[in-house]
Order: sequence, then structure tokens, then C-alpha cells
Amino acid sequence: MSAARDVQQVLARYVRAADNRDGAAMSTLFVPDGRVEIFHHQGGKPVPLGELEGAVAIGQAVSGMMLPHPPRGWSHHTTHDPIIEVSGDTATIDAQFIVYNTVGHEEPAGGWPKGARGAQGIVQPIEAGYYRASLRRVGSVWKIATHQIIHDLPVAVPRP
Amino acid sequence: MSAARDVQQVLARYVRAADNRDGAAMSTLFVPDGRVEIFHHQGGKPVPLGELEGAVAIGQAVSGMMLPHPPRGWSHHTTHDPIIEVSGDTATIDAQFIVYNTVGHEEPAGGWPKGARGAQGIVQPIEAGYYRASLRRVGSVWKIATHQIIHDLPVAVPRP
Amino acid sequence: MSAARDVQQVLARYVRAADNRDGAAMSTLFVPDGRVEIFHHQGGKPVPLGELEGAVAIGQAVSGMMLPHPPRGWSHHTTHDPIIEVSGDTATIDAQFIVYNTVGHEEPAGGWPKGARGAQGIVQPIEAGYYRASLRRVGSVWKIATHQIIHDLPVAVPRP
Repeated sequence: MSAARDVQQVLARYVRAADNRDGAAMSTLFVPDGRVEIFHHQGGKPVPLGELEGAVAIGQAVSGMMLPHPPRGWSHHTTHDPIIEVSGDTATIDAQFIVYNTVGHEEPAGGWPKGARGAQGIVQPIEAGYYRASLRRVGSVWKIATHQIIHDLPVAVPRP
Repeated sequence: MSAARDVQQVLARYVRAADNRDGAAMSTLFVPDGRVEIFHHQGGKPVPLGELEGAVAIGQAVSGMMLPHPPRGWSHHTTHDPIIEVSGDTATIDAQFIVYNTVGHEEPAGGWPKGARGAQGIVQPIEAGYYRASLRRVGSVWKIATHQIIHDLPVAVPRP
Repeated sequence: MSAARDVQQVLARYVRAADNRDGAAMSTLFVPDGRVEIFHHQGGKPVPLGELEGAVAIGQAVSGMMLPHPPRGWSHHTTHDPIIEVSGDTATIDAQFIVYNTVGHEEPAGGWPKGARGAQGIVQPIEAGYYRASLRRVGSVWKIATHQIIHDLPVAVPRP
């Protein structure tokens, strides 16, 4: 497959790892000294919110800092309209993202009501922004060197 | 175009056929003995909900089992972040999906209210999950052999 | 990169220009005599709503006719499931689109409430439909010749 397709699929595996809360899978997508940098977009003038250094710490953040899914819940980190540039063994990808939470209704003891039809539950977009990543080819595999998450919305960090 | 692009476009035609409720178009995307398998994701431990066997039956389900769009209504089955693997004349694609229903407001007899501007109606995400398909190349055309629909949300089947 | 990828990235730059309200960037994506044609989908029987002629006018419409983002607001024009056909120096792309508005909550003077965690604000899908564009290769660069925007929802034009 083309280098651009390979780069796009790294981001596809990134969102799978996020939704599976799979820190080990996330860690393997980054070079050992990879970085995640988080920003608030602020109408085009991004303000830094925090960062993670190293593939190990990035994996630990996925397993430990992201909330587990609630009962009957799941999430979908989705990406859109990638702009990919490849130059030899380095590449960049700029993509829009939307994050959805889904929560299924609990089936009543007597089954769904008579008129019910189709999916039963809620699909709600909760986050949006841009991912801007730089990648390096290590052997035949593309890995993320720096991954910027630029949130449209302000982000609250829980207080003790 | 590349095989990966061709495979992605089969899924693009699949969602067009679903939204057009076009059973004939859907049927042509599958090999004659193709299958659709429907699951509830259950937090990563999929439970089978039902299946359809054969391109003809799959087309009939689109035309006959999916509800027609309501007045001023439409749907968009959208897919995201495909992971595609091609090996000779076989391929797999794993994609996230979100389904939206849209319903336009009815224009008042005297026209839209004075302050109204832009699109008038509702865009609502109603389903989410994963599509996991295997494909075969038949001549120069990729066709779906098995298509798994893995719903995040539980699905109610109408009772008589 | 492949011609199909190049064509897809023109649309990726189109949505960036729309969300940045960047008329100059939008203008450069079109051939000088390019056109935008806007329709209401009407359940598959599109009705023309208006059109723009020329790259200059198209850029001016982005800068002048689209509302600026509100305080703490942004938008994401996203596209999905492109069907791309390339023939020599011409190409077509058919894609689904969803437009989201996002508006961040204003952080209270004393900081976010104690239980707050994650993104604070609203992500709302407001428009949906299809983009259908034809492109021409000018030197090594693909440019949009005709861009059709086919809205699912009726569109209100402000009255004086």
C-alpha cells in the first residue's frame, strides 16, 4: 500500500486503541521518545494544556487517565479529511476529529416496548478538534513522533 | 487506482445503497453467496443478532426491511478510519460507522421566520459501531463476501 | 501520491477553508471560472437554491456570506465515504458531508465545578448532504471546476 495509506492507518489504529482503552496498543504506535501535546484551539490561537513524553507514558495515560466506559457504553474517536504529506521517511497528517459517546438503553425485563425498532440508546458527539501528527518510518513501519490534540472545547481537569 | 482505494469505495457504495434504500445496487456489491452478519458489540464481546445469506436476500432486506425515509427525511450511513488489508485477490476492511437521520422542518406557509438563516431541520446520530468486511476480487471488481455489522447499541426487532 | 489521494485532499483543504472562513484559501482551490451550485436534496430530486460563479466570487462568499464563529465557537465541515473517479486530467468526487458547530462553555470565575472532567461545551451536527465536484489538473495541481452542495435540509436565506 502507499505511504499515505499507511500513515492514515496509523491514525486509524490510534483511535481504535483510544476506544479500546488499550494502552499497550497505543504505546506501540509511537517511537520510544514520542510525545503527545494537548491544546485548546481558542479560535485558531492554540493554548497548551499539557503533554506526555515517551511511548510508555502515553500508553499508561490511555489505560489510567481515560475514564473506563460506563455500563452499556462505548466511544468512537473518528477522524476526517486527512491532509497527509510524505517526504522520504518522515510524514505529517492533519485530520479533524469528532469523539462520540454511545450508551445503550437497558432492555426492560419484559423486552423492548411493542413499537420499539432499531438501535436503542444514545449516540452523542462530545469532543471535536484537530489531530496534527508527525511520523517517522522505522524499518517498514510508520510510528508517531509527535501527536498534537487541539481541542475546540475547553477541557476541565478534575481537582482533588 | 490502488486496490485499497477500490476496497474503500465498495464500502462507500454500500452506504449509498443503504441510504437510497436501493436493494438492487446493494445486491451487486456482494458475491452471490455473500453474507451479512449482525452483532451487538456488548463492550467488545459481540453477540450475534441475525444474519442474511446471499446477495439476493441482502438486497431484498434493504428494500423491504429498512424503513422508508419519513417526509423531508434522509439518512447518512458514514464510515471512518478504515483499516484495509489486501492480499492478492482477497481483502479485509474494518471501519467505524455512525448513522445519522436528518429531517427538514416544513417551511411555514408565509416563509421562514425573519431571523431564520441556514439549514432548517435536525441532524441526529442514531447508530454507531463497526463494519468488518472481507472481500474477493472477481475479475477486476471487488465484491463483499462477508459483512459484519457490529452495533454499539442493542437493537429492538419489532414484535408482531 | 496518487491522483485519487490528491483529489481527496483538495476537498480536505476546501473544508479547512470553510471552517477558517478563509476566502483567499478557498479561492485558490478553484479554477478561475469555477462554479459552486447549491441544491436542496428533496429526497433525491435536487432543487437548485443558488450558485456562485468564479473563484473570486466563491472566495468572497466564504469571507462575506458565512457567519463568523460566535465567541468560543468553531465549526467542522467533515466529509465521508468519497467515491473518486480519475480520467487523465479530469476527476470527480462524490462525498457525504456533515457540518458540526461547537461552542465551548465559559469557564466560571472560580474555575470548573469540582466534578467537571473533559471537554466542556457542545458539539452539534447542523447540516448534512452530499458534495459532488468535478476537478481539472492544472499543471500538477488539481483544482475544482464545479462544486455541487446538495443539502438534506431546506435552507433559509435571510430576508431584509
